Amino acid sequence: MHSKYAKRTNLIKPSELRLILTSSERPELISFAGGLPAPELFPIEEMKEASEAVLTHNGPASLQYSATEGFIPLRNAVIKRMEAIGIRSNLQQVMITSGSQQAIDLTGRLFLDEGDTIICESPTYLAAINAFNVYNAHIVDVEMDEDGMLMEALEKRLQENPQTKFIYTIPDFQNPTGRTLKLERRQRMVELANQYDVLILEDNPYGAIRFTGTPIPPVKHFDTEGRVIYLSTFSKIFAPGLRLGWICAGEKFIEKYIAFKESADMHSDSFSQRITAKYMEMYDLEEHIEKIKAIYNERCTTMLNSIDQYFPRNITYVKPNGGLFIWVELSDSVDASKIALKCLENNVAIVPGAAFYAKGAHKNTMRLNFSNSTPEQIIEGIKRIGEVLHRDLNRVDKSVEIAVY
Amino acid sequence: MHSKYAKRTNLIKPSELRLILTSSERPELISFAGGLPAPELFPIEEMKEASEAVLTHNGPASLQYSATEGFIPLRNAVIKRMEAIGIRSNLQQVMITSGSQQAIDLTGRLFLDEGDTIICESPTYLAAINAFNVYNAHIVDVEMDEDGMLMEALEKRLQENPQTKFIYTIPDFQNPTGRTLKLERRQRMVELANQYDVLILEDNPYGAIRFTGTPIPPVKHFDTEGRVIYLSTFSKIFAPGLRLGWICAGEKFIEKYIAFKESADMHSDSFSQRITAKYMEMYDLEEHIEKIKAIYNERCTTMLNSIDQYFPRNITYVKPNGGLFIWVELSDSVDASKIALKCLENNVAIVPGAAFYAKGAHKNTMRLNFSNSTPEQIIEGIKRIGEVLHRDLNRVDKSVEIAVY
Repeated sequence: MHSKYAKRTNLIKPSELRLILTSSERPELISFAGGLPAPELFPIEEMKEASEAVLTHNGPASLQYSATEGFIPLRNAVIKRMEAIGIRSNLQQVMITSGSQQAIDLTGRLFLDEGDTIICESPTYLAAINAFNVYNAHIVDVEMDEDGMLMEALEKRLQENPQTKFIYTIPDFQNPTGRTLKLERRQRMVELANQYDVLILEDNPYGAIRFTGTPIPPVKHFDTEGRVIYLSTFSKIFAPGLRLGWICAGEKFIEKYIAFKESADMHSDSFSQRITAKYMEMYDLEEHIEKIKAIYNERCTTMLNSIDQYFPRNITYVKPNGGLFIWVELSDSVDASKIALKCLENNVAIVPGAAFYAKGAHKNTMRLNFSNSTPEQIIEGIKRIGEVLHRDLNRVDKSVEIAVY
Repeated sequence: MHSKYAKRTNLIKPSELRLILTSSERPELISFAGGLPAPELFPIEEMKEASEAVLTHNGPASLQYSATEGFIPLRNAVIKRMEAIGIRSNLQQVMITSGSQQAIDLTGRLFLDEGDTIICESPTYLAAINAFNVYNAHIVDVEMDEDGMLMEALEKRLQENPQTKFIYTIPDFQNPTGRTLKLERRQRMVELANQYDVLILEDNPYGAIRFTGTPIPPVKHFDTEGRVIYLSTFSKIFAPGLRLGWICAGEKFIEKYIAFKESADMHSDSFSQRITAKYMEMYDLEEHIEKIKAIYNERCTTMLNSIDQYFPRNITYVKPNGGLFIWVELSDSVDASKIALKCLENNVAIVPGAAFYAKGAHKNTMRLNFSNSTPEQIIEGIKRIGEVLHRDLNRVDKSVEIAVY
């Protein structure tokens, strides 16, 4: 049989993350590799009550086909959440998706023709790049500093790429760097989008998980011409297993999103949508998020302190004000992929940063997740990584041969 | 702002079905329009037990991210179900999808480059055509008779279209016609696929809902070269709201399906996968399906009898041995879209058959769903359609002007 695959199959790289996540299933392993929320915080008893209530009062509807755009009370709850952070919207501007990954995929489907340009942060969220690659996008990246994407560099890219469809940004506690785009740059990004007639895809899964500092309104808050498509998710504030995210955009866009979602999976899980809405009706989601933030803050602090204690001096890191990740830069000559393999031998998993670069990877970087490990695991895991880094440092210092490469 | 949409947005037709489904929400309406299972048969109390058990014993895992390929016990249950109908498979050959609609979409993504040909039945499942259109497929259709797709016509199409990627078929109680592909044609279809080096996409959501006649093994049973990709779903035998379907194909194919599913929605709902697997562990799904079949058989018979009683003589229909639909052909001059609108005025919804043709619609056809209405509603609804058809018949007889068009 001849190969029948579409050309796009060549563009999907076997995810390094997948390999690491697979080995993460070893029970003795301490994993900082995934982006998993702390499962011990999931509101299990409340979910039992919510499931029971949904099945008792709306059993048939919760198991039946339902509207592609999503369950109205859930969309109303989403509208309320967004209103609290400075986004005004209505029911016709909100669609529920099967996780925000689907929102990213549908955005590619809706806007990208072969060869169209999208501009993203460098580094950025791996699975978004994979989704854009499905549509044969031309991906252009923009350097960041500690305050997010650099606006001068963004403008240069916009000038160089008149076929740009949208800017893809994760403004709050970015994956993988944990960096936050500062307020003036959010305003500037919208100005540039207006000026160069492009859209902005604002992917905001972590914004609600801020544990220090003052909240900054989302990019969508500054939107003057309906150019910002805002994505978020219940994955980090409630439960990722239910696969519930949402898109907020202009009504005309949402109409098309609905048509494409219909052909992608008809609608998101009716039962999970109703349970999530019921949970928010019966309990206080904000209170739950406060618990998550307190625990994540503790874990983040523990990890930062452990890094200071156990890592060599010649590294730098980003101290995040929220989210799930710490980004570490090793010295220039170090290949974090090799470090990651050695760490795995020592039963600790990390993701080498190269996986997050659309182009020209910085191989001396790595992403550490703190949300899915206890403080004890964090201390022990960072200690083990520290040992690997110190050994590597000694090896490089002693070996001229290797230092040449 | 200039339009930024991808070209493919022009290929997605606003679904006639959507319009009819929206008006179906009027409570006074009797709807034969959707393809909805009978919600009163959903096992609500059993679902409560299964949800409670999952949350009690596997709460955190059921709400956490999970493997893209799906929950192993659910995949094992699927393997067992397929084995019973003559498909042998292993875990590496089965992936869970977010409904079989996602399986169709991912198949397009995996195999279709712009302009590639797919061959389908005429008429066929509307939402599959929409999904293939996303990938700019060239759609070629093949006539059917009461025993399904005509093999001589299929071979002719294969000769005419050397760029064919796959044949899309719904062999059991096809949507929309209710027809079943006879055994010899299944064998012949596989022979032709081998000979012309194409794949077969076997979409089999209804096969388990056979209420009369002898079961016929699926096309996949006759697969000799790993060319048949088999899709099915829990939507018709359990609960469509949970959005759980599956793909069974060769291991190499499944590897690529997994990579594409990862970029589409990461994985299907963890909680729903576990509830469904738990339900099958705690209860007898076969027994539940027997109940569904008995009720659907009664409803189908009621609808057929009512058609005989209330419809004009000049119509023909397909008597199905299973599934959810009856297909009606009106006399050549009648436009079923107009009939559908008049029916809506009389508070009964049908889908005009034109919606199911990829090309050259037969406008004088309509699809009637019997699974989602009580026998009383069926009798009353068919009576109302009958009245509309009789009025139309009289009108045509009396009006020369209209008869000309």
